Amino acid sequence: MARTNSQIEKIILGVDPGTNVMGYGVLSVVGNKAELVAMGTIELKKYESHYLRLGKIFERITSIIDSYKPDEMAIEAPFFGKNVQSMLKLGRAQGVAITAAIMRDIPITEYEPSKIKIAITGNGNAAKEQVAGMLQRMLKISKEDMNVQLDATDALGAAYCHFIQMGMPKTEHKFSSWKDYISKNSDKIHN
Amino acid sequence: MARTNSQIEKIILGVDPGTNVMGYGVLSVVGNKAELVAMGTIELKKYESHYLRLGKIFERITSIIDSYKPDEMAIEAPFFGKNVQSMLKLGRAQGVAITAAIMRDIPITEYEPSKIKIAITGNGNAAKEQVAGMLQRMLKISKEDMNVQLDATDALGAAYCHFIQMGMPKTEHKFSSWKDYISKNSDKIHN
Repeated sequence: MARTNSQIEKIILGVDPGTNVMGYGVLSVVGNKAELVAMGTIELKKYESHYLRLGKIFERITSIIDSYKPDEMAIEAPFFGKNVQSMLKLGRAQGVAITAAIMRDIPITEYEPSKIKIAITGNGNAAKEQVAGMLQRMLKISKEDMNVQLDATDALGAAYCHFIQMGMPKTEHKFSSWKDYISKNSDKIHN
Repeated sequence: MARTNSQIEKIILGVDPGTNVMGYGVLSVVGNKAELVAMGTIELKKYESHYLRLGKIFERITSIIDSYKPDEMAIEAPFFGKNVQSMLKLGRAQGVAITAAIMRDIPITEYEPSKIKIAITGNGNAAKEQVAGMLQRMLKISKEDMNVQLDATDALGAAYCHFIQMGMPKTEHKFSSWKDYISKNSDKIHN
């Protein structure tokens, strides 16, 4: 059944920035459920120039934002890397993706890869395939729609992690006691 | 004497990207001489959000490009840093500055800080103040116009280094022999 836009509460764009392949995944939140809207990859290897790749990231993220009108963006952002050179390169790709969102006034949240893996599989060292498999089951994604690179499911994982972090579905929150509730909701306490 | 635009052969924009302050310097090339057009800094410390800072870099670099219409951009780009975190942050700022140029079809050349220092002072470990002093003398910049932060003169240094790399002023090239000339101009040899 087609869903009208008025039922959608929020659109979340997940991005996995890289200089060879950039993944993206779009989720819509309806009630306390998330649904897949789109996911895919932006192939950058064909552009020999590192500069052209950055320009392409900016253009494509901007066009994805204009197509799906996300309310928020989640990016997978490793804070530790093999070496300074690879982090510099990764930083450039991240900076461009972030700027595309900022230029469209979209709030950004960064998630470390291990945090996304824990949120989805319960294991911070889970393989990308496990993350993809869990997302397929949780979002009831067809086998056909799963025919994408792992960069796309990684990006979708960032969006899904953000959906969980938003506090949805709220009914799934479990608190062992009032003290536990307070410790987990200190932002709700007015002093 | 005012110079008409038709005499200007090339405009070079130099950028020194950073997440606290970003410097820029604009040079015009007339004949075999470079002249200061403008230099300054973009203050980013006032924006608490790292994301807003990146957006501001993009906006300001774009507006500097639209104001001065540079033909080429030179950026000061360290390839080695203290640690991966600082390189990730620097990479983000660099990526945004590069993308602003790419979106306006402006070719980019990166120069390591030591290369810029050697080109201007002859010493790869020169202090920023020495670079600024040499630029002031070589470009005959008034004391008033030198009243800028060292991030601005660093950026102007990148532009000046690019001007030198372009092979100008050609008259200053010295060749000890025809063999020396050939070895220094292998791109001019047609096989």
